Amino acid sequence: DMTAVMQTVTLIPGDGIGPEISTAVMRIFEAAQVPIQWDERNVTAIQGPGGNWMIPPNTKESMDRNKIGLKGPLKTPVAAGHPSMNLLLRKTFDLYANVRPCMSIEGYKTPYTDVDLVTIRENTEGEYSGIEHVIVDGVVQSIKLITEDASERIAKYAFEYAVNNQRSSVTAVHKANIMRMSDGLFLRKCREAAENYKDIKFTEMYLDTVCLNMVQDPTQFDVLVMPNLYGDILSDLCAGLIGGLGVTPSGNIGTNGVAIFESVHGTAPDIAGADLANPTALLLSAVMMLRHMGLHAHAQRIQTACFNTIQDKRVLTKDLGGNAKCSEFTAAICERVQDLD
Amino acid sequence: DMTAVMQTVTLIPGDGIGPEISTAVMRIFEAAQVPIQWDERNVTAIQGPGGNWMIPPNTKESMDRNKIGLKGPLKTPVAAGHPSMNLLLRKTFDLYANVRPCMSIEGYKTPYTDVDLVTIRENTEGEYSGIEHVIVDGVVQSIKLITEDASERIAKYAFEYAVNNQRSSVTAVHKANIMRMSDGLFLRKCREAAENYKDIKFTEMYLDTVCLNMVQDPTQFDVLVMPNLYGDILSDLCAGLIGGLGVTPSGNIGTNGVAIFESVHGTAPDIAGADLANPTALLLSAVMMLRHMGLHAHAQRIQTACFNTIQDKRVLTKDLGGNAKCSEFTAAICERVQDLD
Ligand SMILES: CC(C)[C@H](C(=O)O)[C@@H](O)C(=O)O
Ligand SMILES: CC(C)[C@H](C(=O)O)[C@@H](O)C(=O)O
Repeated sequence: DMTAVMQTVTLIPGDGIGPEISTAVMRIFEAAQVPIQWDERNVTAIQGPGGNWMIPPNTKESMDRNKIGLKGPLKTPVAAGHPSMNLLLRKTFDLYANVRPCMSIEGYKTPYTDVDLVTIRENTEGEYSGIEHVIVDGVVQSIKLITEDASERIAKYAFEYAVNNQRSSVTAVHKANIMRMSDGLFLRKCREAAENYKDIKFTEMYLDTVCLNMVQDPTQFDVLVMPNLYGDILSDLCAGLIGGLGVTPSGNIGTNGVAIFESVHGTAPDIAGADLANPTALLLSAVMMLRHMGLHAHAQRIQTACFNTIQDKRVLTKDLGGNAKCSEFTAAICERVQDLD
Repeated sequence: DMTAVMQTVTLIPGDGIGPEISTAVMRIFEAAQVPIQWDERNVTAIQGPGGNWMIPPNTKESMDRNKIGLKGPLKTPVAAGHPSMNLLLRKTFDLYANVRPCMSIEGYKTPYTDVDLVTIRENTEGEYSGIEHVIVDGVVQSIKLITEDASERIAKYAFEYAVNNQRSSVTAVHKANIMRMSDGLFLRKCREAAENYKDIKFTEMYLDTVCLNMVQDPTQFDVLVMPNLYGDILSDLCAGLIGGLGVTPSGNIGTNGVAIFESVHGTAPDIAGADLANPTALLLSAVMMLRHMGLHAHAQRIQTACFNTIQDKRVLTKDLGGNAKCSEFTAAICERVQDLD
């Protein structure tokens, strides 16, 4: 329905190739007549009065108002003590679920076909607590923090996701044989959630076993849910199966509808500004965003246009095996979007 | 040299298919006239006077005497509180380095070819400290413990391994962007060790990036060294690349020449006793053991016989795609060993 009310989305183009791929997404959205307007912001780290790091207040306000954000890559902080802005964003907006659908793209050859799975990562605690101590000289401890609340929340999210996305199984990934109390708690919450979703098959698997099985036959997996660090690892591993971070979308989901969708690849400073970047990951993240906003028809059309362009192989960016510029690849997708009208 | 002095090795056949695959290895060693005699022991968990779990004293004595052990799979403990015997063995003999060479086997088809890498896992601390607490109701912490001594020891081991095995690079795998102090310490010790091995190329890489790159192109890796949990994950992932735990050898190295070599697959109770098991992982672990003992010619001959048998495809166990019995596969390897004399 092209007559829908305009919604505003906070756009954080980011660093390096970020602005180019953001422009690409905006063009394609325009061609597809998506009823969205953009509120462009940046997330340079700034230090508050107490010395604590925060994102710029006007960016925070924009997100508080719009609830939905789309974000390009951010450069890795160089100075020690300066936090990762990605982590700060997750924290600021309590984005507790990182969702990464990994689907084989027809025509883009990797060692695997028919991958179609989703990793759901707890995004707020675990090994990312930031609590570390020197016990005595030469002995350091890092604390992995697992809470009942966060475990329950992410477990429930995973099952809800499965139900809402016509998925049939959820696998909880853990090392409760080693971390009996912390992963044990996480696992217990998954089991409890499973009780309420009898139509979704629930399984449990050790992280090492998942990694092994994943590279042997990823088609056996559907939705996977796991603590923070395991999600960091598995989501990248799975992205590798389908062609890497350049083609993998990602969404960070919070409460009350707040969510930030982002490409998780780097800023590629070597090609920044050269019109050579591949906008696919950001575009597919924007497609996830449209689904989150209920704009399913637009999402489907843009996704189809993107996949068809890749499958067609005539206009591809360098990393995808072609020699087209970012703007040419973008134009090719725009054309198909209009043809699909 | 067939006139070498007999050495004694502690053999722990283990559970399930353990005895069958141990018999297979013994047969092949006999055919190859390896100057080794076996001292067979078991590692059922027993409880000491203070209630603490230990391995049977006569097994401990055997290992203390022989220093070298070969071990089949052990069943997973069912009772809560009962420790994993694998972990108990690592602890009892301070087996600080888990070494897993992953090499593509010609003729055994997987999505990858030319994999040739080695994972070296710190085996004594990290996320496996076993220290966990309930902080308040619903909040649990697990402690990851990283020490200077253990990090230094494993880093040095990795570089020594590289030198002694004609390897050209060592990659330290870490998440020091998140666990700045603990993984930071580990990484620092790797950097320091690298200073003493100028002929070995040293690189550092985030665990998530390694996973992603690994499934995209494993041939870019050589020796990888990492903390305990990361090793648990990566070593299984890499095993998956070359065909799984049924064909992947493993060695646990301690100080003063002590070492236990083991197949890391399960006990396969469903086929135990049916003469259907694949002895390859245990055999290749035994080959690693021979190299550790300096019996290089025997090691090479047995490895070649094993690989040729697999490549030849005529006599293979079921999991390898054939329909031969364990004893038939074993006999085929024995024949080749003798032909290679
Ligand atoms: C940038 C980095 C802090 C981050 C992480 O480790 O979570 C990244 O790897 C990710 O997956 O988003
Ligand atoms: C059996 C289990 C405790 C063990 C581990 O987690 O280390 C296993 O996965 C391994 O890799 O040896």
